Parts: sequence; C-alpha cells; structure tokens
Amino acid sequence: MVIVMKPSAPKEEIRKIHDKMIELGCQVHPSEGDNYYLLGLVGDTSKFNQSQILANPHVDRVIRVTHPFKLAGRLFHPEDTVIDIGGHKIGGNNKPCIMAGPCSVESEEQLLTIARAVKSSGAQLLRGGAYKPRTSPYSFQGLGEEGLKLLLKAKEETGMPIVTEVMDTETFGTVEKYADVLQIGARNMQNFPLLKRAGRSNKVILLKRGLSATIEEFLMSAEYIMSEGNSKVILCERGIRTFETYTRNTLDISAIPVIQELSHLPIIVDPSHATGKWSTVEPLSKASIAIGAHGLIIEVHHEPECALSDGAQSLKPAKFEKLMNSINKIISINA
Amino acid sequence: MVIVMKPSAPKEEIRKIHDKMIELGCQVHPSEGDNYYLLGLVGDTSKFNQSQILANPHVDRVIRVTHPFKLAGRLFHPEDTVIDIGGHKIGGNNKPCIMAGPCSVESEEQLLTIARAVKSSGAQLLRGGAYKPRTSPYSFQGLGEEGLKLLLKAKEETGMPIVTEVMDTETFGTVEKYADVLQIGARNMQNFPLLKRAGRSNKVILLKRGLSATIEEFLMSAEYIMSEGNSKVILCERGIRTFETYTRNTLDISAIPVIQELSHLPIIVDPSHATGKWSTVEPLSKASIAIGAHGLIIEVHHEPECALSDGAQSLKPAKFEKLMNSINKIISINA
Amino acid sequence: MVIVMKPSAPKEEIRKIHDKMIELGCQVHPSEGDNYYLLGLVGDTSKFNQSQILANPHVDRVIRVTHPFKLAGRLFHPEDTVIDIGGHKIGGNNKPCIMAGPCSVESEEQLLTIARAVKSSGAQLLRGGAYKPRTSPYSFQGLGEEGLKLLLKAKEETGMPIVTEVMDTETFGTVEKYADVLQIGARNMQNFPLLKRAGRSNKVILLKRGLSATIEEFLMSAEYIMSEGNSKVILCERGIRTFETYTRNTLDISAIPVIQELSHLPIIVDPSHATGKWSTVEPLSKASIAIGAHGLIIEVHHEPECALSDGAQSLKPAKFEKLMNSINKIISINA
Amino acid sequence: MVIVMKPSAPKEEIRKIHDKMIELGCQVHPSEGDNYYLLGLVGDTSKFNQSQILANPHVDRVIRVTHPFKLAGRLFHPEDTVIDIGGHKIGGNNKPCIMAGPCSVESEEQLLTIARAVKSSGAQLLRGGAYKPRTSPYSFQGLGEEGLKLLLKAKEETGMPIVTEVMDTETFGTVEKYADVLQIGARNMQNFPLLKRAGRSNKVILLKRGLSATIEEFLMSAEYIMSEGNSKVILCERGIRTFETYTRNTLDISAIPVIQELSHLPIIVDPSHATGKWSTVEPLSKASIAIGAHGLIIEVHHEPECALSDGAQSLKPAKFEKLMNSINKIISINA
Repeated sequence: MVIVMKPSAPKEEIRKIHDKMIELGCQVHPSEGDNYYLLGLVGDTSKFNQSQILANPHVDRVIRVTHPFKLAGRLFHPEDTVIDIGGHKIGGNNKPCIMAGPCSVESEEQLLTIARAVKSSGAQLLRGGAYKPRTSPYSFQGLGEEGLKLLLKAKEETGMPIVTEVMDTETFGTVEKYADVLQIGARNMQNFPLLKRAGRSNKVILLKRGLSATIEEFLMSAEYIMSEGNSKVILCERGIRTFETYTRNTLDISAIPVIQELSHLPIIVDPSHATGKWSTVEPLSKASIAIGAHGLIIEVHHEPECALSDGAQSLKPAKFEKLMNSINKIISINA
Repeated sequence: MVIVMKPSAPKEEIRKIHDKMIELGCQVHPSEGDNYYLLGLVGDTSKFNQSQILANPHVDRVIRVTHPFKLAGRLFHPEDTVIDIGGHKIGGNNKPCIMAGPCSVESEEQLLTIARAVKSSGAQLLRGGAYKPRTSPYSFQGLGEEGLKLLLKAKEETGMPIVTEVMDTETFGTVEKYADVLQIGARNMQNFPLLKRAGRSNKVILLKRGLSATIEEFLMSAEYIMSEGNSKVILCERGIRTFETYTRNTLDISAIPVIQELSHLPIIVDPSHATGKWSTVEPLSKASIAIGAHGLIIEVHHEPECALSDGAQSLKPAKFEKLMNSINKIISINA
Repeated sequence: MVIVMKPSAPKEEIRKIHDKMIELGCQVHPSEGDNYYLLGLVGDTSKFNQSQILANPHVDRVIRVTHPFKLAGRLFHPEDTVIDIGGHKIGGNNKPCIMAGPCSVESEEQLLTIARAVKSSGAQLLRGGAYKPRTSPYSFQGLGEEGLKLLLKAKEETGMPIVTEVMDTETFGTVEKYADVLQIGARNMQNFPLLKRAGRSNKVILLKRGLSATIEEFLMSAEYIMSEGNSKVILCERGIRTFETYTRNTLDISAIPVIQELSHLPIIVDPSHATGKWSTVEPLSKASIAIGAHGLIIEVHHEPECALSDGAQSLKPAKFEKLMNSINKIISINA
Repeated sequence: MVIVMKPSAPKEEIRKIHDKMIELGCQVHPSEGDNYYLLGLVGDTSKFNQSQILANPHVDRVIRVTHPFKLAGRLFHPEDTVIDIGGHKIGGNNKPCIMAGPCSVESEEQLLTIARAVKSSGAQLLRGGAYKPRTSPYSFQGLGEEGLKLLLKAKEETGMPIVTEVMDTETFGTVEKYADVLQIGARNMQNFPLLKRAGRSNKVILLKRGLSATIEEFLMSAEYIMSEGNSKVILCERGIRTFETYTRNTLDISAIPVIQELSHLPIIVDPSHATGKWSTVEPLSKASIAIGAHGLIIEVHHEPECALSDGAQSLKPAKFEKLMNSINKIISINA
C-alpha cells in the first residue's frame, strides 16, 4: 500500500501517519520528491481501512498495490481450477462446456422438447429458470419449485446436469436439492447474504458479472463465496452496461483473457444476454470460443415467439445446431 | 405500443402479426411508408411480451409508448405523495428533510455523540447502519441486532426517528421492529424478493438507485414495492457509475427534476456516496437543495480517521453544522 | 417518424401539429389510446428537424423509424462494399486484411526493421504514424512529413501500401500525397471539417469509432465522408470508454456483426488500442477474426521498451508472427 | 512516479529497471514486500514515457503521483484566474457571468430579438453559433462568416461581447476577427491542432469538456492551449455520456468543486446541452449557481418550434427571465 500525501501536508502530519503505520505493524519506506511525499508500506495491509486513512485531510490518495482477492487470485493458486459437473469437466485445458436450454421452464413438453434438441446438438448441461428475476412485477415470475421438478425430470430423461438460478437465501435450500449448478444472476452479484449462503453450499456456483461491476468487484464476489468454504465457482461474463443502446448490453470480451491472468477460476460467456438479439448469438459464441472461454451458456427455445421470457434472444434448435457446428470447428483447431 | 417491421418483411408476415394483435384484444393502426411499415397498437398492451414480438425475425423494433410504471407514475396519481415519519413530513412542498448520522453503528458512545451533534445542528432523522453491505468479505460487516438496539437507545434519547439498511428477507422482520425507515441499498435495488417483502411492510422504505440503473428501472423497483401494497416509498439518488474515476460515482443531479416530472414520490439525495470525498459533500448538498430535492442523507462521524467504514466521505460535526447553515439559507429563499 | 403526444396534450394542439405535418408534405396516421396519442408520419421526413417538434411542450417524444444514414446503410446498397488497396481487397468475403507496423515512425532503421518483419509474417499493409494525437502537449508529436517520407521508402522496399493518420485539414493534402489509406482517429470521428475534406479525397479513408460514439453516430460520420463523394470508407472498432478501468478501453466486439447488418462498408478491429495491453492483443485478434471482422490493425515494435509511443500495447515481431499463425488457422476454417 | 513490479519479476530485471531510472536522473526508493516490489521515483519524471516502462513484461503497473498538468493546475498557481471580457470579470469571487443567446444565428431579426431579450433579463455575454458541428451532414450547418457579421451587429447594438464556436484551424482567423470569446466544442476537446492554434490566439477560449473526457483529460486540453502561450481559458462542464438515456447527457455537477480544487481556471456550466430538455434548464442552473460555478451558458430562442437547431433545449425569453430571477436570489445569499 502506498500513501500519497498532499503537497501542502505539514511535516508533523506526515510524521503522525508514519508513526501510526509502524504502530499497526508495517515497515514504512518514505520517498520525498519536490512536490510530493510517499509512504510505501510493507507488511500485512490487507485489513487496513483505506477510508480511514483518506479521512485525513492531508492525504491525497491511497494506492493498493496487491489485489484484494486472495482465494480467487492466481498469486497463491497458480494452477487452473477444474470443476467436475456430473462427469463434465470445466476449466483449464478441458474442451469448452456448453450449457443450453430455455430462459424459463414453462411446461414439461416445452422443457423436454428443448432438452432433447440441445442434447442432440451436443450441449452438456441443461439450463432453465424456475425462479425468474424480472424488471417488472407484472411479468411472468417463473414456476418456482414446480419448475425445478420439471428440470429434474428432464435430467432423468437426458442425463444432463441442471443449471438454474437461485434468487434468495429463503429458497436456496430448495434449489440446492434439485440443481447441479446454482446460478447467481447479474443483479445479485453483490447480494452479500446470498453469496455467503452459496459459500456454505457444496454445489457448484455459477456467478454472473453485474451490469456495472468492475473485474475486481467481480472477483471479490467470488472471494465472498470462497471465503465461506465453497471453492467450486464458475465465473460468467454476460455483458456490461455502457452508453451503447443498439445492443442491450456490451459484451466485455477482453474480460476473458484478463480474468484468466488474474484468477484460476473457470470463466464462461453468456452471448444471449450480452446483446439481447438472437442474430448476434452465433457470432459472439464463435468469438468467445476463439478467445479461450471455458464454456458458453445459451438460451434456446423451440417457439421463441411464444416464450414467456427472453424470446428475442433465444435461438431455435436448428440455429443452435448450426452454432454448435461453428464452434466445434474452432474447438478443433484450438485442440 | 408501436411495432416497426423490417423493410424486407413480406406482406403475409405483416398480416399475421396484425391478426395476432387483434386477437390479443388491440386495435391496430397501420402506417405504411416507402421503406417501413408500422403497426400502432391501441388498447391494454401492458401485459404484452415485447420479447416475443421481437423474436419474429421480420420485426425491427418494438417501441413502448406509455411508461411501464403505473403506481409510481404521475399519470394516475398527479398529486405529490407526502410521507410522515414520526411527525416529520417529506415530499411535496414540505421543507427538505435532513437525515444524518454515521455510516455504521460502532458503539453506544460513538452513536450518541454523533446523534446529539446532528440533532443540535438541525437534522430530523438519524441514520446508522447495523447490517453493512461490504465489497470485501474481510471488511467490518456491522453489529447486527446489537446495532439496532443502540439505534433505539439513541432514538429514545434524542427523539429522532431511525433510518437503517435492511439487506435480506431473513433479517427484514428484525430490522422492521426497530427502524422507522428501512433503507434498501443501491446494490439491492433489483433484489426482487427483498422489494416484495418491503411491499408487505407498513414501514417507510427508502429505496436507493442502483449504480447502473436507469431512471425507468429505478421507478420499476418502486413499482415492485407498491404493487405489494406499501406506497410509502422515498427515492434516493446516490450517484451512478460512469467512466469518470476521480470521484467514486457521478451524482446524476438531473434525475431530481426528471423524477419529479415522472413520479409523485419524494426524492432525496445522498451526497456522501455520490463522490466518496468529504470535501464535495457540502457543495453537492447546496446544489441538491437548490434543485428542489425533498431531503438529504449525510454521513457524519466525530472521528472519521477511526470510522469502521466510509471515513473518507464522513463529515465532522462542525463541518455538518456549517453545511446546515448553508442549506438553510437556500431553503429560506425557496420558501 | 412517430410523434408521441403527452397524455395532457389538448386536442387543438394535436390538431395544429397534425396540420403542420401535412403542410410539410407528409401523410399522417393517428392512433389514439386511452392515455396517449400517436401521429405516424409517412413521407420524406429525413430533413425534418426533430428538435423543433420536441420544442412543443405538448410533445412527449419523437421516434425516428428509419435510420438517418442513407449512403452508409444497407437499405439502398444491399451488397457488401469491397475496396482495393494496391491489389489487396478488403470487405465482403475476401480474406481478412492485416495492417501492422509501429505506432509512430521514429527512424528509417526502426521503420524498415519492423516493416520487413511484419511483411514476412504475412501482413498486407504497413501502418505507422507521422502526425500523432497525444493527450499531453509534452509528449512526442510525430516526425511530420519526414515520417511520411520514411513510410514511402518502406513502401518502395517492401511493396506494402501505407496506412497513416491525418489530423487536420491543413496537412491533409500532404498526407494524401504519400499515403494509400488515410486514417481518421477516434478523437476526430466528429471533426466534421476533416470528414468533409476526406470526402473530397480519392484515397481510401480508415475511420475509427470515437471513444463514446454510438454505432449510429459512427455510421453518420461515414455518411459525412460519403456525402461529399468518397465512398471508399473502411470502419474500425477500437474500443469504447466504459466504467471498467482494468483495460484502457472496452472492445465492443458485438459492434462487428451489428455493423455488418446495418452497413455494407468493411469493418476492421484495432485490438492494440482496445485494451492498451500487449498480452491481450493476440486473444482479441482471434476473437475478431472468428466473429468475421474484415481485417485487423496491429501495433508492432521491435523494441517496445524504447518506443516513443504506445510501447505498452505493441507486440514484438516474434509475438506478431505467433498471432498471424493463430488467426490463419481460424481464417482457414472460415474459408 | 511509482513502478510496481509483478510478483514473479526476477531480481535481475528489477535491478535493470532500477539502474535505468537512476541513469535517467532519478533517485529510486525501493520498498520490498512479501509479494510485491515497488520503486518510488524522485526527480523530474514528467517527460518519462509510462508506456515504455509498461512494455516490460515484468512491470505490473506504473502509478503517476503528481498531476500531469502544470500550467492549468493549482500547485504552481494557487490563486484563482480572473478573466476580463469587455469589462465583465469571470472567475474567482466575481459574480457568476451569464452567457445567453440562440444555438445558431439564423437571421438579423432573430438574433437581435433574442439579444435584446437576454440583455434586458441580465445576461452579460451574447452566445450564437455561426459554424455548427452537426451529427448529420444533412442538417443546417450555420451561416458562416455571414453569421459572424450579424453577431457583430448585435454587439454594436447591445454592447454585449460575443461568444461563438470555432471548428477548425482554417476558419480560426476569421472567427477571431469577430468574436470576444472563441468556443471549442465538446467534440473538438481533443482536436490538438485546434487547441494549439487557440494557444497562439490572444482571445479568450471557452473550452467545453468532451462527452467522454475525464477531468484529467479535460485539464490536459486546457494545458495544450496554455502551453502555447494563451492562459485565458474558461472551462465548461456540459454533461457527459453515460448509460442513462432519459436525458441526452448526464451533467457531472461534482466536476465543479473537483475542478476548483485542481485548477485555478474559471469553470462554467452549460445546462442546455446537459440534458437536451428545456424543462430541466432552470433547475440545473440553480444547482450550478448554488454549487459555485463561475457562470452559465444558456440557449434562448423566441420561437424554439422554428429554431434551425436545438429547439428542444432552448428557453423562451420569458422562461429565461424567470431563470435569471431564480439564480439572482441564490447569488445574493452567496454574496
């Protein structure tokens, strides 16, 4: 940690901070320039309260040198994490893992039709929402536990492990009973009680990046889960909010290689939510696989014009089949 | 609602959508230009699923004409909502209501010292956090119910109603027992189970705008609360996330007059979180009062260098007193 | 164009606007709902001044239905534009065109060393800056015409056509004499006098997207150039400004398929400026080729630690060679 | 300047950088922690090329400690700059200076009608555009020199000094002949040749913040002008581009106190462009004056429904008069 004093800071104020830091157990390496004064702190500053130091009116800035995430970071865990989901491996050099299915579970027939289709095109995991976060209270809110039961039925028939969203601590236990992978949605990325509950689960957690979360905040949310004991965390980039409105969000594809530098956790891409337009899902999927994402999660619906949610970004099964062919070619040259 | 067809849409596809809309109970007014075809829909389209219509590959865009919020909007509720909090009125033409206190409740002595100070400077409500949402799992997470008890003690001594944050549905009942105003934080603005629970409370809810929430999404979150029966909602602008990093967030001050046009609910400003810097709190408070905000919520700490959270943006009591003098002058000319 | 009236608009005001529009030569198709009134305009509204209509206090919104770009759009020009640069074809189904070279031309030796290297790895065009836009007046501003002469020398030796930036109308004629492709930088995307000058040139123009330009504004800047008579415009996505600061900008990779839907012009990617980090240049290049970009423009330097500009994002020749191998594999499966 | 090495950096690489920095004339103060190594540099690092240092793969980050602007910053120029414009003083503790007039000069009658109106309401300077930057090549582009002549006529009649935009170096000399204050628009904030030309002028320059410019970049553009010898620079905050689309831009009102801390230059606000809506111009003006802006620049038109540009954000003279009354009350309590 480096403390930068204001040019106007009196010597005695600098001395006070200097002494305080030594008292807190640091070594202090000062550098004095013509117009600035720096204190380089060596020692365990991870518990230091940056905001307290900044409250001193003579302090200009406090710069953290090391990353605040320890468990999610590569520094103490250089090897890639590989997670097993019912026999499918995700992370490291494993073949990208494809999760596909409808936005919402709507009925047994709908779910089974789609599950069979995506399985036959090569998807490994089945996604489907039973509890749905919706911007409007007047929109379809999901089938709840009934939806979970249908997912289980689809799993029994197809053998595909289930990915489904969990929205709060109250229904966590219920979702945990049915699902193989519990998804925490973008709007809940900093729902800290939910993150802590996920940390006490032994299921795999799929954590989506918040619409306006920095990469550092994203990794800190993974850290929350891991700090409670669950290290089976898959990260998911799904588009961030920017000024561009032609697409619903902006896929931050650079985040894939950046997160792979910073963290050992698997990182996948959700190309469906990234733009909200079905016509860009295949191109974005190809780009994501080419850049090295560990997997994709894709919305598929056999009748998007009748889907109870996200019809606009859902692929029909034939288009999903075409997408799988495209990415398989890229996977083959990466191998 | 207006449906814009793609220039390439075949006549028969247009006819199909036309018939489908009539079947759904709308009148349809078509406009045909040289290079486009519009369908103007008249009737109750509020339950229409825009995403289903967009799933049709011949549809270019769907434009919603009326706002999706009904209870929070001015259209059916033109009069300003005024909310009474222990005798203090907020909203409409009432004098701005000032809420002040520490970021976190830390101890009895700390809380009472600050509560007395802000009361004597003219604050009406006491703020203080017992449950704290923190970006890092390693930061101070608040005193929990112990903090709520201290807030109650401070209320008994000073007579100030309490504003405090509630983070999840599990602790909602506990917070409800102690607090007069329950704050839903920016990171929980789209925590829909929490919003629904707040809608079943009879306490006042202070809803903060999310870091990347549009004004429409902000009002839809108020709509969630109101749709469950609780219409005592106070909105709070607290800065949005932009590319500018010199300040922690960017206060969207234009949102005040815009929200006052769109909604009848009271809207206040949090100048402390808006920038994260104590030196800008007074200037932003003056601007907020001048523009017509219904109140302010401000972090005050007698020893910000020792505060367990947000020291950098907390005002010392003497600076808060100066701020109150400044805004009182502006209030006097507005009156 | 659709005019949405405010719910409170008096009948006579609606009538006035209605008549005004007919007077301006439109047909007007009104749709009246319970709480709104729409006027659908049919006819040539491209010269209509939206801002004048919005100045009427009874008008809520004006929605443009057709895109404002005519020459750059696909509607009247459905076929892909293919541009020939000294025998290299760019656009349509042609093999992606790779432009590479140093950020700045620094010396004959530097330029020739790099030019030979990138040519031998398979680059088709040589990039290099002689006039440099720099955030600080104290940074190296480029060699000027001297730099252009060195570029010409490199072209003579290697046969590679030259891409170089032009910063103002005053030096346009000079740059035009030497260069094959004139680049207009992101900060000049809405320098309208410069765009008009480019429109009167018969050289190819490489137009970079502004840091905060929407896709529509980007295409309107191409429209400026084309409206003066020059239709040889190549678009370049180079990252937009968002809240994320870990990377210098955020590559908006979705813009590639979106622009290919909206426009017939070739669109390439600049992965070097997108993040400002050399380690992400190869991954982003692979993603860009996989998604279908018509080309890449990449900064290469044999001694980035000594580069007078942009060393941090420059690749060494060996890394560029590796990148070319990676993208050639992807090109081969696309073919 | 502080250089942060990667945790994996070998000792000999650190040593090389250490020696290189000493060779460049710095003192180097190293701090070694368990997982990091810092080099604190003391001496004149203003000419150091950060990008070259970052090109070293063992360097993690380079942190600049002092601000890169010298002439525009407060460090070496602690006193507020006050600029005289035809007897009207702007900056420091002077009464805020109000500039008003039409977006575009359209005709003699239009300009004189508006000029008389704004003067009688108390505006000090007359604004009006003769050269107009327009997003579309098909929009009205301004009257050019003819417009400047009309401005001069209005000045002769009303005595009001003129503020008008200059768009390029070619017409700079012409605009300079007529105007008292030359405005550089948001889209030209990083048009470096134009900034340099402005720096060689002896007229006052009004520099608008770019839509996506950070405060530091904004001050660096002022630095460009000042580094060529012209220190008469007025800064203007006019809204930045964010995700919020309800308003055209987001006024960054916090930038006013922040810039007043960092720089000695006057800073004014343009409330008309900030949102693009006339109904928010008065509220934003009050907020801007309350927060301490040194002035305002406001668009006024007697017939906004017929304005050739920006009708939607123009105030009618009666509304401008009301605005002046509102802000005069706030000015009186500030005094």
